[in-house]
Amino acid sequence: MRIACLHGPNLNLLGSREPAHYGTLSLAAIDRELTQWGETLGVEIHCAQHNGEGELVTAVQGAAGDDGLLINAGAYTHTSVALRDALLAIGRPFIEVHLSNVFAREPFRHHSYLADIALGVISGLGIDSYLLGLEALVRHLRHEG
Amino acid sequence: MRIACLHGPNLNLLGSREPAHYGTLSLAAIDRELTQWGETLGVEIHCAQHNGEGELVTAVQGAAGDDGLLINAGAYTHTSVALRDALLAIGRPFIEVHLSNVFAREPFRHHSYLADIALGVISGLGIDSYLLGLEALVRHLRHEG
Amino acid sequence: MRIACLHGPNLNLLGSREPAHYGTLSLAAIDRELTQWGETLGVEIHCAQHNGEGELVTAVQGAAGDDGLLINAGAYTHTSVALRDALLAIGRPFIEVHLSNVFAREPFRHHSYLADIALGVISGLGIDSYLLGLEALVRHLRHEG
Amino acid sequence: MRIACLHGPNLNLLGSREPAHYGTLSLAAIDRELTQWGETLGVEIHCAQHNGEGELVTAVQGAAGDDGLLINAGAYTHTSVALRDALLAIGRPFIEVHLSNVFAREPFRHHSYLADIALGVISGLGIDSYLLGLEALVRHLRHEG
Amino acid sequence: MRIACLHGPNLNLLGSREPAHYGTLSLAAIDRELTQWGETLGVEIHCAQHNGEGELVTAVQGAAGDDGLLINAGAYTHTSVALRDALLAIGRPFIEVHLSNVFAREPFRHHSYLADIALGVISGLGIDSYLLGLEALVRHLRHEG
Amino acid sequence: MRIACLHGPNLNLLGSREPAHYGTLSLAAIDRELTQWGETLGVEIHCAQHNGEGELVTAVQGAAGDDGLLINAGAYTHTSVALRDALLAIGRPFIEVHLSNVFAREPFRHHSYLADIALGVISGLGIDSYLLGLEALVRHLRHEG
Amino acid sequence: MRIACLHGPNLNLLGSREPAHYGTLSLAAIDRELTQWGETLGVEIHCAQHNGEGELVTAVQGAAGDDGLLINAGAYTHTSVALRDALLAIGRPFIEVHLSNVFAREPFRHHSYLADIALGVISGLGIDSYLLGLEALVRHLRHEG
Amino acid sequence: MRIACLHGPNLNLLGSREPAHYGTLSLAAIDRELTQWGETLGVEIHCAQHNGEGELVTAVQGAAGDDGLLINAGAYTHTSVALRDALLAIGRPFIEVHLSNVFAREPFRHHSYLADIALGVISGLGIDSYLLGLEALVRHLRHEG
Amino acid sequence: MRIACLHGPNLNLLGSREPAHYGTLSLAAIDRELTQWGETLGVEIHCAQHNGEGELVTAVQGAAGDDGLLINAGAYTHTSVALRDALLAIGRPFIEVHLSNVFAREPFRHHSYLADIALGVISGLGIDSYLLGLEALVRHLRHEG
Amino acid sequence: MRIACLHGPNLNLLGSREPAHYGTLSLAAIDRELTQWGETLGVEIHCAQHNGEGELVTAVQGAAGDDGLLINAGAYTHTSVALRDALLAIGRPFIEVHLSNVFAREPFRHHSYLADIALGVISGLGIDSYLLGLEALVRHLRHEG
Amino acid sequence: MRIACLHGPNLNLLGSREPAHYGTLSLAAIDRELTQWGETLGVEIHCAQHNGEGELVTAVQGAAGDDGLLINAGAYTHTSVALRDALLAIGRPFIEVHLSNVFAREPFRHHSYLADIALGVISGLGIDSYLLGLEALVRHLRHEG
Amino acid sequence: MRIACLHGPNLNLLGSREPAHYGTLSLAAIDRELTQWGETLGVEIHCAQHNGEGELVTAVQGAAGDDGLLINAGAYTHTSVALRDALLAIGRPFIEVHLSNVFAREPFRHHSYLADIALGVISGLGIDSYLLGLEALVRHLRHEG
Repeated sequence: MRIACLHGPNLNLLGSREPAHYGTLSLAAIDRELTQWGETLGVEIHCAQHNGEGELVTAVQGAAGDDGLLINAGAYTHTSVALRDALLAIGRPFIEVHLSNVFAREPFRHHSYLADIALGVISGLGIDSYLLGLEALVRHLRHEG
Repeated sequence: MRIACLHGPNLNLLGSREPAHYGTLSLAAIDRELTQWGETLGVEIHCAQHNGEGELVTAVQGAAGDDGLLINAGAYTHTSVALRDALLAIGRPFIEVHLSNVFAREPFRHHSYLADIALGVISGLGIDSYLLGLEALVRHLRHEG
Repeated sequence: MRIACLHGPNLNLLGSREPAHYGTLSLAAIDRELTQWGETLGVEIHCAQHNGEGELVTAVQGAAGDDGLLINAGAYTHTSVALRDALLAIGRPFIEVHLSNVFAREPFRHHSYLADIALGVISGLGIDSYLLGLEALVRHLRHEG
Repeated sequence: MRIACLHGPNLNLLGSREPAHYGTLSLAAIDRELTQWGETLGVEIHCAQHNGEGELVTAVQGAAGDDGLLINAGAYTHTSVALRDALLAIGRPFIEVHLSNVFAREPFRHHSYLADIALGVISGLGIDSYLLGLEALVRHLRHEG
Repeated sequence: MRIACLHGPNLNLLGSREPAHYGTLSLAAIDRELTQWGETLGVEIHCAQHNGEGELVTAVQGAAGDDGLLINAGAYTHTSVALRDALLAIGRPFIEVHLSNVFAREPFRHHSYLADIALGVISGLGIDSYLLGLEALVRHLRHEG
Repeated sequence: MRIACLHGPNLNLLGSREPAHYGTLSLAAIDRELTQWGETLGVEIHCAQHNGEGELVTAVQGAAGDDGLLINAGAYTHTSVALRDALLAIGRPFIEVHLSNVFAREPFRHHSYLADIALGVISGLGIDSYLLGLEALVRHLRHEG
Repeated sequence: MRIACLHGPNLNLLGSREPAHYGTLSLAAIDRELTQWGETLGVEIHCAQHNGEGELVTAVQGAAGDDGLLINAGAYTHTSVALRDALLAIGRPFIEVHLSNVFAREPFRHHSYLADIALGVISGLGIDSYLLGLEALVRHLRHEG
Repeated sequence: MRIACLHGPNLNLLGSREPAHYGTLSLAAIDRELTQWGETLGVEIHCAQHNGEGELVTAVQGAAGDDGLLINAGAYTHTSVALRDALLAIGRPFIEVHLSNVFAREPFRHHSYLADIALGVISGLGIDSYLLGLEALVRHLRHEG
Repeated sequence: MRIACLHGPNLNLLGSREPAHYGTLSLAAIDRELTQWGETLGVEIHCAQHNGEGELVTAVQGAAGDDGLLINAGAYTHTSVALRDALLAIGRPFIEVHLSNVFAREPFRHHSYLADIALGVISGLGIDSYLLGLEALVRHLRHEG
Repeated sequence: MRIACLHGPNLNLLGSREPAHYGTLSLAAIDRELTQWGETLGVEIHCAQHNGEGELVTAVQGAAGDDGLLINAGAYTHTSVALRDALLAIGRPFIEVHLSNVFAREPFRHHSYLADIALGVISGLGIDSYLLGLEALVRHLRHEG
Repeated sequence: MRIACLHGPNLNLLGSREPAHYGTLSLAAIDRELTQWGETLGVEIHCAQHNGEGELVTAVQGAAGDDGLLINAGAYTHTSVALRDALLAIGRPFIEVHLSNVFAREPFRHHSYLADIALGVISGLGIDSYLLGLEALVRHLRHEG
Repeated sequence: MRIACLHGPNLNLLGSREPAHYGTLSLAAIDRELTQWGETLGVEIHCAQHNGEGELVTAVQGAAGDDGLLINAGAYTHTSVALRDALLAIGRPFIEVHLSNVFAREPFRHHSYLADIALGVISGLGIDSYLLGLEALVRHLRHEG
């Protein structure tokens, strides 16, 4: 079982960027913990981060052969129909995750172009949004498989 | 450490009610799994379900002495300012959970009166919304404590 | 064949309450006429009135074993997602009725959380909204049965 | 006592047109049942159908001497101020009826230019919308007369 | 100089229809006064009334050879893009008139599909809306000619 | 019979200001023509122009003893509740007039705080808006008197 | 003279709940001061608090025999049509009061389902909202009586 | 194979009407080119134009036996639910065409009551909107047939 | 202690102006009662009324040295950002008062540019809105001082 | 004559992606048919597809020397002002095409940032949207040239 | 070359008023710096401040003979159509300036009635908004002259 | 002191692109003037232009070590939350500049995702928007430093 974990724009700055919203862990640290947790769960994780909408679209397309996706699309969550289309196109189950609680921020962050086609959404739990999202995705895939 | 788990209206019908949205587990089964998972995590869980908005408000008030709450307010998520006020009043950290993916349903289910004051939101993962929510809440409480 | 007839908040005041909108019949008189009309049609009617949203939700759940429902949810028609969920949960055919013409009143009475999942809606015909609603429901059940 | 029953655009296609929404009865069959039900109730019914808004307006004007109207304005329910004006102009009591449940369809069918000036509205009960509407109108006229 | 005066739906009922809004003069009386006033002003008036949107559109097309139009489109003022298109198509100057003050009535009467392409609008002055409108139109035509 | 004619902000610039919208007549010329027309009609006209909302409010209050008002409130038509209140307070009939066709301009000029409490509205006819408005007001006062 | 004073959801927590918004007085202390003030004014006060919408509706119905009501409906101010209907049904004069300034809080607290049918509204003055509200109500009743 | 081509209000004026939007070809010329193009494609075309909404509805009903429709409903595109219902009722594939680019004109021309139930939409290409629409419809019918 | 009491446009007409909304007391009578009540409370009151927004702004600025303000801004409540800015600029506590119940009137009177920065709002209690407002303001100032 | 044909995000997946919306042809097949059709029409076609908004912008800029464009911007149709600006900047005529009927899908696909500056729009005709669009563009260029 | 610099309501309080938004410079200091900067640039500056909308309108009219204007209309930026009309009437180029960043404040400060008819807008740069605005205006006038 | 100057999509076309909106200077010319002006002010300027949103995000991240930014995000001003997030992430002061007056163009250009977190905004002054923006930024940095 293979899971893609995709991070959107500005997540490469994690740790230094607005710690009140995003915490102090670096993206590399999150990817490391996710990979270890994947090993524990018996699944292979491959992670990538992109600042560009088109690059993220291409990365989603590249995950068409994976079993599922964890995706934190960052700002593109709220503005990208192209990303939605890529996820519809590959037809793989995915969980939308956010480090911060998007509902406690500006109104334009309350709408997601991805949420209604996701398996589920986890928001506001810091790195646990990723770790629990991975666990939920794996359980879902094993249960459905 | 003691955690309240509150279920809103119609969740007493779980298992028989619209299985396409809510799955086939009964509420008792969910409470049982939560309690066991709580034991594993070393926390005490007490669960309650109410059809009435006022009863839920009173139950939230009754949890003022607990360390945190898991709350699936069901339909009141979308209509109850009173529930929001009760949660503001007791000032305890809580996670909002939903069995189904509320963003994939009617537009009036896309807004929550609770989400912006919650620690986080987990939606669409069936019983895992509760189990992972409990795990996240316990980790948060231990990390902050 | 057994039909539940549920009345929402303030309908217990019928006869004394705003006769220009609601007429001068008491709720007991309406229930009596409905019961007699039910006997004529060969169906058993059981009626109940509740001021509380939760109590109405519970009453709808209690009608899960009936063949259908007549429901005048009063003010909760316009505000209660919980009632909608209860009706979705039990999956029984129901007709939404109103004594007054809700479309001739304040704008917030023009929207119903129940109408789109009802068999039909009858509004503005006084006690006839109930009596004709019962007749339509019985005919529907016999026709579908 | 004389009652006009007016049918709006496309209702001449009943029976062949979208049976899921409108049933399999032809308009002629509905008019026949209405006329017979009128005879039973002791009132004279005259029915007409028009595809044109102007023709319907003229037909409403022609009913100024009748005691009341049953009107299923079809699509014009949602778009015609002219029809509203005709009904205001003749000042006769009328009941708005719909075969299908308009509230379960496209949002633009949820608003009616006629409902707030009608005696009442019956929606979603197939031919019973007409038959029960006639009964309610006759009772109203006899009660008020 | 030749002026068309077109009346929209239900204006044939003037005198009997809602005198509080529309006064007690019949349409024939209005047309008579307009014609006499036209004679005084030295212009020829021809008047017509139609209940149908299509008939009004055709009547506007028929006025393409006239010097200008007075138009009281009644309910179609608020709903007819086709009438707007007919007036755009013939490109003749016109004045929009209303017997009643449309701004003091239901909100859907506050918008006109014709006003922004009219020479001007006169509303609320009873028959004077027509008579003064005629005077203004004639003065405009003479001034521009 | 005495009529106040009040002009709002920037109308003192008439003649030089945006001739495409407002024509080339000066305000003094308009007032002169109005006064002469008033003499012909046998009524006394007194005119005033103010750039300030408060001054216009005071001028309306000063017209409480007059028989009626012509008012071109200019920009305050669209923004002044105070002017509306002054007109409500004195309770005299008035006609709202505009030189240009406000419906053919920016959307914020399509709403008037005065129109629904006016006797009528005349818009887009240049100085004729005033002259015909005066005629209509005098006829109304004589007819009602 | 007898006045009902009704408190809505979460007001039982006063003193401990969000002191920045609601102050440090307990509800019992407020009721005590109100009762004393009532004695001074020569009127009998009876107070009650309910977390449930239905219980509040029933309490309003129970005040049908009183001379007037003070009501701080808390969160139900913004969501309860049922409470509005109960107040309409009993037809007694009432004053809506709020401890905090609702207009300085979330937008959903700016709308009240009760304010337009109240005698008046007092908001933001802490316990004085109640005490002055009582005084105003008594004066109104004595003046009207 | 037989195709109906229906033209809406004011299209009879083509050639003389606003050439900047609609070009200089007459409707007869368009019908002639369409018929010839139909012959080339091996299909029979019959064309009709109506100014009335009801007449267009009736014409659509009359095309129930045809294989498909080209429809340029003109102004009714934006206002007619009745036309939508007629097209739903006959259930034949149709292509919505416009001579001018409706998206470059007034906002009320951007919405179509027909587009979502059409096979496709072609807008802005002058007579080519019709000719290419016919080609696409024929290919679709042959491909599906 | 010194309190400014400022009255907005048209309040100089009190007594004669729309008694149904505003009562029969003159403004001089209100100012007299306020002054006497101030003497009883041991505070100095100075009152002023202005029809102009700019004059009211200047009057608010002039109250910068006072301890607090009572303000009934009348129509400017709903339209004046300048008045809001003046109150923000002087930073003195103030209570917004209204004689009539603004929530029972036109929708544009439901919004206030002042309420969210006021200490509190009193609406609908006639002269008691002023007298109780003064009492509340004095208590607040003594309590905070 | 040289025409650019630009495809937006995810169109590289054609054939495998959601065949219900987009058909089973691959993008290469479409480009091949377009090129052949171009040869028949005597024009040179060059095609490109990009997942990135910036890449598409650059590609549009690169077409500044071409005679016209066919553009299916996919998701960027609904979200990209940058693409609109690129098309405005190069000032070449273009036709907006869509394989699927965008009006029959989610509401956010009903708005296009490109349509009002396009020559025309063709939507819902599968590969024919491209082929007929090419034909229309060539005819337009030859007619205008 | 002569430039008018107009300041709107409450700007006379600069220095004492909300220093977080507006800085600590007095208006006199700003005018002094502007005048000196004008001397350096070789232009004559005359400055004025008004609290009243009408006075500002009159001041704008008084600048009809100047070469251009700097205008900080303060609160009237967001509410005054009269000011817009005055600026349209005199037809002189002007730059809209704001000391504070209006986009970072309440939503009603995000709209300007002046910006679309201004040469440009400078916001948020404190006194530099004025000084740079003056420089830009002078450069524009010299470049255009 | 080092300042980044970032240009968004299509600004590479300056000089040839829509000169009515953007002037005739090339981007290279602007960068040259900015650099010279920077030398005069004693600061180092480095400029870059990107058509891609992701590239601009990366460029903003690359400016984290600079003292401040001038940013003309072009179309992304109105659509890019990612750019906003990048600017929030690096936390450097920046000024938003536009060559054209965005408020005089399409409504979707009136909203900026960047303005409320900018130091200030300069719009409509051509190259002066950049030059004056640089001056203001340098002054701000020196004043704060």
